[in-house]
Amino acid sequence: MENLDAIFNPRSIAVVGASPDPNKMGYHFIRSILSGGYRGQLYPVSSGAAGQTVLGLQVYASLADVPGPVDLVIVSIPRTAVLSLLDECAGKKVKAVHFFTAGFHELGDEMGESLEPQMVQKAHAGGFRIIGPNCLGIYSPPARLAIGAMGKVGKPGRVAFVNQSGGISDKLSLIGIGRDINFSKGVSFGNGIDLDAADFIEYLTADPATGVIGCYVEGTRNGRRFFEVLKKAAAVKPVVVWKGGITEAGARSASSHTGALSTPGNVWSAVLQQAGVAQAFSFEEYADLLMLFQDWVQFPGRNVALLTGVLGGGGGAAVSGSDACVRAGLNVVPLHSETMTVLGDILGRVGSILQNPVDMSQAVGRTPLLEKCFKSVAADPGVQQIIVQEEIDVVVSAYPLEAALEFNRFVRDQLLASGKPFVMVLPPGDAEPARLAVQQVFRDSGVPVFPSLDRAARALSIAAQYGERHPAKSA
Amino acid sequence: MENLDAIFNPRSIAVVGASPDPNKMGYHFIRSILSGGYRGQLYPVSSGAAGQTVLGLQVYASLADVPGPVDLVIVSIPRTAVLSLLDECAGKKVKAVHFFTAGFHELGDEMGESLEPQMVQKAHAGGFRIIGPNCLGIYSPPARLAIGAMGKVGKPGRVAFVNQSGGISDKLSLIGIGRDINFSKGVSFGNGIDLDAADFIEYLTADPATGVIGCYVEGTRNGRRFFEVLKKAAAVKPVVVWKGGITEAGARSASSHTGALSTPGNVWSAVLQQAGVAQAFSFEEYADLLMLFQDWVQFPGRNVALLTGVLGGGGGAAVSGSDACVRAGLNVVPLHSETMTVLGDILGRVGSILQNPVDMSQAVGRTPLLEKCFKSVAADPGVQQIIVQEEIDVVVSAYPLEAALEFNRFVRDQLLASGKPFVMVLPPGDAEPARLAVQQVFRDSGVPVFPSLDRAARALSIAAQYGERHPAKSA
Repeated sequence: MENLDAIFNPRSIAVVGASPDPNKMGYHFIRSILSGGYRGQLYPVSSGAAGQTVLGLQVYASLADVPGPVDLVIVSIPRTAVLSLLDECAGKKVKAVHFFTAGFHELGDEMGESLEPQMVQKAHAGGFRIIGPNCLGIYSPPARLAIGAMGKVGKPGRVAFVNQSGGISDKLSLIGIGRDINFSKGVSFGNGIDLDAADFIEYLTADPATGVIGCYVEGTRNGRRFFEVLKKAAAVKPVVVWKGGITEAGARSASSHTGALSTPGNVWSAVLQQAGVAQAFSFEEYADLLMLFQDWVQFPGRNVALLTGVLGGGGGAAVSGSDACVRAGLNVVPLHSETMTVLGDILGRVGSILQNPVDMSQAVGRTPLLEKCFKSVAADPGVQQIIVQEEIDVVVSAYPLEAALEFNRFVRDQLLASGKPFVMVLPPGDAEPARLAVQQVFRDSGVPVFPSLDRAARALSIAAQYGERHPAKSA
Repeated sequence: MENLDAIFNPRSIAVVGASPDPNKMGYHFIRSILSGGYRGQLYPVSSGAAGQTVLGLQVYASLADVPGPVDLVIVSIPRTAVLSLLDECAGKKVKAVHFFTAGFHELGDEMGESLEPQMVQKAHAGGFRIIGPNCLGIYSPPARLAIGAMGKVGKPGRVAFVNQSGGISDKLSLIGIGRDINFSKGVSFGNGIDLDAADFIEYLTADPATGVIGCYVEGTRNGRRFFEVLKKAAAVKPVVVWKGGITEAGARSASSHTGALSTPGNVWSAVLQQAGVAQAFSFEEYADLLMLFQDWVQFPGRNVALLTGVLGGGGGAAVSGSDACVRAGLNVVPLHSETMTVLGDILGRVGSILQNPVDMSQAVGRTPLLEKCFKSVAADPGVQQIIVQEEIDVVVSAYPLEAALEFNRFVRDQLLASGKPFVMVLPPGDAEPARLAVQQVFRDSGVPVFPSLDRAARALSIAAQYGERHPAKSA
C-alpha cells in the first residue's frame, strides 16, 4: 500500500526511452508531464540520446546515472530490453515501474508470454511494483501529473478510475476537464501482470480522498478475487464497472488488446449485480455515471418530474422525454391534484401541459411565475427528483446569451433552494459555446448535466437502482 | 397541391398579432423572418399596434389594409378572434393560414373542441388551407424563410421534415445547420386540423426537391390514410418516422400537447415496419437517420469493419466499439486472411490489433502506411462498410489542430477514393472547437459523422435494414 501511495504521489519520475523526436512516446511523456505542471523531479533517460536534451532537460545514459532517488519509472523501450532495465530499477530502489512498452501476453507469441512472469519475479525480488505493461499509466491531479501524452490536468476531486485501456483513460481525463468530473487518482493498467484492477480497487476502497471508483475492464486473471474486492468496495462507496468485450466480437478484440479471457456478457452482468456495483455499457454511460455518483451522495427513487420548456423546447420534449424516462425504468408520476391546481393558476391552461411532464413554455422569462412553479413541483410529495430540459441553441436564437445565463442562474438557485435533487438536460446543437457556458453555470454548483434525455434517464435509473440496493445511500 | 407550393414559397407573408414588444411571439415572427433573409413581402398586422412599426415595418390595422396580395398568414392572436380573422383571410384570397395560436382540441374544453371544425369549414369555403393550430409553421431554406423565432436558415438540401411539435422543428432546423442536414422544406403542423402529416407527406412524396422525409408524429386522426401515405412515400424515397408517446406516460403527455389519441407503441412499430419506413426512438436517432439517409443513396449490408486508433483512441475503442456494433445488430466480420497479412506487414504485430476492429495506432502520422491499410481493408470482399473512430481532443492534446485537420483530409480522401461506404465517429470531449472543425472536413464531403459508436452503430443498422427491405436501394 505504501508503494501505491508513491505511485500516485511520486517525488520524482524517470522516463526511460526518452527522446527528442516528437514522433516518439518517449518525447510525449516528457512534454506531457512538464505541460501538466508536475512539481517533482523529472529525469529523461536514454542510452541513445545521452548528452542531448529533451525540452530543456538533460538526458541521462542510464537510471544509475540519475543524480537523485527515483520513485516512478515510465518505460518506452523495446520489450527485448525490459528485463535488464528491471535489474537497474532494483539497483536504484525505485517504488514502481510503468511499462508503456507492449508486446507481451496480448501478442500471444512465445517471447511475450515468457517475459511476463520473469518481469513480475524481478519486481517482487526488487521490492517494487509494475504498472502494465501495455498501458498509459498514472493520472494524479493532486500531484499535477497528466496521463500519457495528454499534458492536461483537471481539478483534483473524489472520483478514481482504474482502466485497463489507455485510450479510455486519456479520454476520461479530458472529458473530466470538460464536464467537471474531478479525479483523485487514475490508472491505465493494461495487461496488469503485477498490479491488477483488484489491487488498485482494494487500495482505492481504503483511500480517504476517493469517494467513487470507476473501472473499465476487459478481463481479469483472478475472477474470484476481483469479485470479492468489488463487493467490499461497493459496500463502502459507489463503484461503476464498464466491462468491455461483452459480445463475442468484443471479447475477440479484447483478447488481442489486453490478453483478456472471454467470459459471456450475461455472466459478467450477474456477477457485477451480485457485487452491488453499477454497470455501464458504453463510454458515454461510464462518464455519465461517474459524474452523477460524484455529484450526489444519496440517491433518490425512480419517481421523477420532468420540466420542459423552461427555456427552449417544450411539448415535444415533454412527450419524448416521458418515453425516454419510462424506457429507462423511471416513473413519470402523476402530480398531486394540488400541484396541478397551482400550476394551472400560474401557467394558464392554453398552450401548457399541466401534468407530468410540465411544459413551462408559458412562464418563460417571467421569473416570479417560474419560482412558484418550481416550488410547487418540488414540494409535491410524489416527486423524488426533477429533470429539467432546455434547448440552449433555440434560446440564443431569440435572446442574448447573457440573459440566458442570468436566467439559468435563477433556475439553478431556485431548484437548489427547493432541496429536491435535480439534473439538467442540455442537448448539443448549433450554439455549442453558449451551451457549454450554460452547462458551466450548473456544473459550478455540482448539478449533473446530460446531453440527452435518454442519457439522463439511463443514468438516473441506474443510480436509483444503486440506492435501492444500498439503503443507507438512498435519499 | 398548388396551395402547398405557395405555403413553402410564399411571395408575401402577413403576421397577424404583430407586436413591437420583444416578449411576444408577434414580435419574434417578424424578427425571425427578417433575420433569416426572406426575400418576399412582409406585412405586420395588428389592430392594437396599427400605425406603429415593428423593426422598421409599418403595422397595418387589418389584413384588408395590406396593400398587396398575401400568400401566407401567420397568426398569433387569442383563440376567440380566429373565426373572424378567417373571414378576413377569405376576403384577402390568401393561400394558407398558419396558426401559432393554441387552445383548441389539445386543451379539451368545449370552446377549443367546437372551434376546430368551424375553422376548417371556413378555410374550405374560402379556398385556402390551415397549418396548425398550435404550431410553429413553415421552414423553407430555398425561400430563406426561418421557422418560428429561430431567425436562421441553413443551406437548402434534400431532406424534408413534417413534425407535429414546434420545439422539435426548431431544434431540427438548428441541428441541421450544425451538422449539415440540409432541408428542402419543413413544417411544424401541431393539431393538424386541416393539413395533417399525411397531406404533407403525400405532397413531399411527389416533390422533386425532396429526397428524404422525416416525420415526428404524436398521433393522427386517420390512421389508415397515414399508413397508406407512408407506404407510398417509402416506396419512392427513405422515410424516417419518430413516434412520440409510445409509452403510457408519453401518450398521456401527447394528448395534452397535440390532442393525440393513444395507441400502444408496439402497434405503431408494427405498422411503421409494414409501411417500410425506418423508425427512430429519440431526437438524436431521428437526426442521425436523416443525416445518413441524406448522405447516402444506397445502403450497404451489416458487415462492418471498425478502424480505431487512426487518430486518438485505439484498443479500448476497438473492444467497446465491437460491443456497440453487435448490440445494434451489425456484424463485425472476420477479415480475409490476405487483409490480415497485409495489415500485419504494415502495422507490425506489437501494440496492434490485426483483426476486425483494426487498431491502427501504430500507423499514426505515417500516411503511406495508413494509405495501404485503408486500401487493404476497403478491398476486403467481406467488408460492406467501414466505421472510423477518432478522439479529436486526445489528438490535439499532443499535436497542433492544423496537423489533425490536414491528416483528416488525407483520411477522408483515401477512404472516398476506396469507393467503400464509410462513416466517422468523433466523440465530444474537451476540445469542441477542434472537433467541430474536423467534423466539417468530413461533412463538407458528405461523409456522415456521429458523436458516439453506439449512435453510429444504431443508425447504420437501421439503414441496413432499410436496404434489406428496399433491394433497389441496397449497395
